[in-house]
Amino acid sequence: MSGSQAMINAFDPSKAERLDDRDRETVEKRDRLLGPSYRLFYDQPFHPVSAQGVWLHDAEGRRFLDAYNNVPSVGHCHTRVIEAVTKQMSILNTHTRYLSDGVLDFAERLLDLFPSALDRVMFTCTGSEANDLAIRVAKSATGGSGIIITRLAYHGVTETIAGLSPSLGSGVPPGRDVFAVDAPLDPRQGGDVAAAFALGVEGALAEMRRQGVRPAALLVDTIFSSDGIFSDPPGFLAPAVQLFREAGGLFIADEVQAGFGRTGDRFWGFQRHELTPDIVTMGKPMGNGYPVAAMVSRRDLLDDFGKKSRYFNTFGGSNVAMAAATAVLDIIRDEGLVENARTTGDHLRNGLIALSQSHPIIGSVRGAGLFIGVELLRGGAFDRPASQETAAVVNGLRERNILISASGPNANVLKIRPPLPFGIAEADLLLSTLDSVLQTIPVA
Amino acid sequence: MSGSQAMINAFDPSKAERLDDRDRETVEKRDRLLGPSYRLFYDQPFHPVSAQGVWLHDAEGRRFLDAYNNVPSVGHCHTRVIEAVTKQMSILNTHTRYLSDGVLDFAERLLDLFPSALDRVMFTCTGSEANDLAIRVAKSATGGSGIIITRLAYHGVTETIAGLSPSLGSGVPPGRDVFAVDAPLDPRQGGDVAAAFALGVEGALAEMRRQGVRPAALLVDTIFSSDGIFSDPPGFLAPAVQLFREAGGLFIADEVQAGFGRTGDRFWGFQRHELTPDIVTMGKPMGNGYPVAAMVSRRDLLDDFGKKSRYFNTFGGSNVAMAAATAVLDIIRDEGLVENARTTGDHLRNGLIALSQSHPIIGSVRGAGLFIGVELLRGGAFDRPASQETAAVVNGLRERNILISASGPNANVLKIRPPLPFGIAEADLLLSTLDSVLQTIPVA
Repeated sequence: MSGSQAMINAFDPSKAERLDDRDRETVEKRDRLLGPSYRLFYDQPFHPVSAQGVWLHDAEGRRFLDAYNNVPSVGHCHTRVIEAVTKQMSILNTHTRYLSDGVLDFAERLLDLFPSALDRVMFTCTGSEANDLAIRVAKSATGGSGIIITRLAYHGVTETIAGLSPSLGSGVPPGRDVFAVDAPLDPRQGGDVAAAFALGVEGALAEMRRQGVRPAALLVDTIFSSDGIFSDPPGFLAPAVQLFREAGGLFIADEVQAGFGRTGDRFWGFQRHELTPDIVTMGKPMGNGYPVAAMVSRRDLLDDFGKKSRYFNTFGGSNVAMAAATAVLDIIRDEGLVENARTTGDHLRNGLIALSQSHPIIGSVRGAGLFIGVELLRGGAFDRPASQETAAVVNGLRERNILISASGPNANVLKIRPPLPFGIAEADLLLSTLDSVLQTIPVA
Repeated sequence: MSGSQAMINAFDPSKAERLDDRDRETVEKRDRLLGPSYRLFYDQPFHPVSAQGVWLHDAEGRRFLDAYNNVPSVGHCHTRVIEAVTKQMSILNTHTRYLSDGVLDFAERLLDLFPSALDRVMFTCTGSEANDLAIRVAKSATGGSGIIITRLAYHGVTETIAGLSPSLGSGVPPGRDVFAVDAPLDPRQGGDVAAAFALGVEGALAEMRRQGVRPAALLVDTIFSSDGIFSDPPGFLAPAVQLFREAGGLFIADEVQAGFGRTGDRFWGFQRHELTPDIVTMGKPMGNGYPVAAMVSRRDLLDDFGKKSRYFNTFGGSNVAMAAATAVLDIIRDEGLVENARTTGDHLRNGLIALSQSHPIIGSVRGAGLFIGVELLRGGAFDRPASQETAAVVNGLRERNILISASGPNANVLKIRPPLPFGIAEADLLLSTLDSVLQTIPVA
């Protein structure tokens, strides 16, 4: 895979003849029925038939450890989510143009998880829709149009948001008045991460001024995901955000991946940075697979938009979506999943750092909680990414029944982002299997 | 309500003091927690607590006949959809980057409902996302950017699609290279509906040429909804579509409201027009409330987009979404709901025409199957819309426990669009209650 259609860890359809009959036929059927934009993961696509907790199963009864999927955030097929959805589906499932207690009870509960300045919520179905709405609100509230994103950002698939997602490749038309800045540095590269990132934002602001573009939004992941998993040091976003706000723009925190306790320290990724965003967007883990997403902001920022436009999202804030999202909050609390993300995440990162002693290809271990990036480097040099080796590790783990993926501009960062109930035993299995796989990787 | 924020049949928050304590408190709580873009229906907002089939219930145990909601298309809380969703949620719910049989089985089944030229499907969560994707594909396949919509169109809420939805009001920034044409005529106004609509499209094409804009898409409802429910005569879209295609553009049929058997004659609204669209979008009724939507098109049109861009919609095409959508197709078939839409729809339209004898305010009865518009006019004159009377009828029916809404540029078209199991008895109840309500409306 190369050029504008490249996707990290994508299956190469020209190699379909290597697959067994069943998978090859399924791949052919996909090609015959689905649009050609669809991509599969892995050299050998994965074909699950059931799942439970942190495990997925294939038709041959093999079980696969899920160290990648963040949507089944409280675990695949969690009984309490299923019960909540089933119960509410049997009672009522309508929309926000009727009065409903469920949407308000959930809104209250969700807003309680935010700093008090963030006092209003709007519901969508997907993170893409939440980010799209956030951009509409930011443009309306600021009167500006300039958006800053990172160079390999991914924020979603609507036309507007695809234009803010350069990780989709050069074939996707970039949005107007969009300015890309370098992702944060790895702290091990030396230099001041916060100052370097702020410098990038300052440069983009200067370019906006030169072009006569008024700033609207700085939109970033609070743990940078597609850019290569950048998380540290805590607080590094603050100077860039301050600069951007002084220029009249708003800070949108994309919590689609970092949110809902994944970072293990607090509930939201932005809390690592000791700042309060102007707008927060969230999605994937919110309903544990039931489509529900949201945007949280402040009344004063939403007022102008609300005067100019109504907003109705047919399924957004529906009774069932709210029941699923309520169950997820209950489970995170009752099962101590933020604590577990911290404990298991620390154990896993420490284990990865220990592994780096015997496997010098492990150049850096980043992340927080159960959102972990492992950068593979040749000779420990950040300018010598071990891209092929990373692909070999991802596929080697998949052959040994563990699912992860990769990230970053050079596709050399292992992306480990399991469901939150991932425990110490699973972390140890991942570590020992990774150790075995790394032993098969030739040292460059 | 007036100006750019007007929504037909919207509750006026300044009149909240008229409500009983419980509803007033709920309205206040909404205002305190949700973004100010949210709107409620009716002078007296409706507060349902449960639903079954074509009935909704409030906390006082009153039942309300649902003659408006198209999302619970096979009936509120349909057991078979609930069972299908619950069963699949308990087994597996992942995404299209793994191989999955459910998405392919459903894709095959869905595509069987289309002319053979339409041979590929892509899944999204909402109709907004489906239309947004359709616009991205149309721009990619044509190399153009010019879009034609109708003057009061509504196609969704992403930034791109809100820009193609002038019914959201003048406060919403119109999209670039967007050209609005007049909605179709009512056949009773005289004149050739097809020729008049084609003339509008011809004018928009001339304006595109003048501005150097290349045509990309003609995007319309196949039964025009927010424009005022225009359906007839069958086939009237064909000449406009032909003109637009000759200019190099694509025809996108928005089936979010007309599709899935609602028109009672065929499965899709475009089939009334004896033409095959280039792209078809669908949403609301597809999962009976479970968020699932889709875009159907042709391989040759999707190729360019697929080469330039991957597309991944986290929840789109998930196992559970496909289970819900499969159940909906099963129910439509097994319960004869297309046939029922025709039978009940014909009965209802005939009854409405009969009512017009005693109520001359009924100026025109339009629509097909269970998608019906009743235009209220003063003195039978199309230039004297009975807008206030229409609001009085909608609210009068709501006071008598029947839910409908209104449509059109003058908000003078009753919009009747019930769940598909709506039967003759329910139609008769709607007709007799409408008769009573109309008797209370002063003749202008």
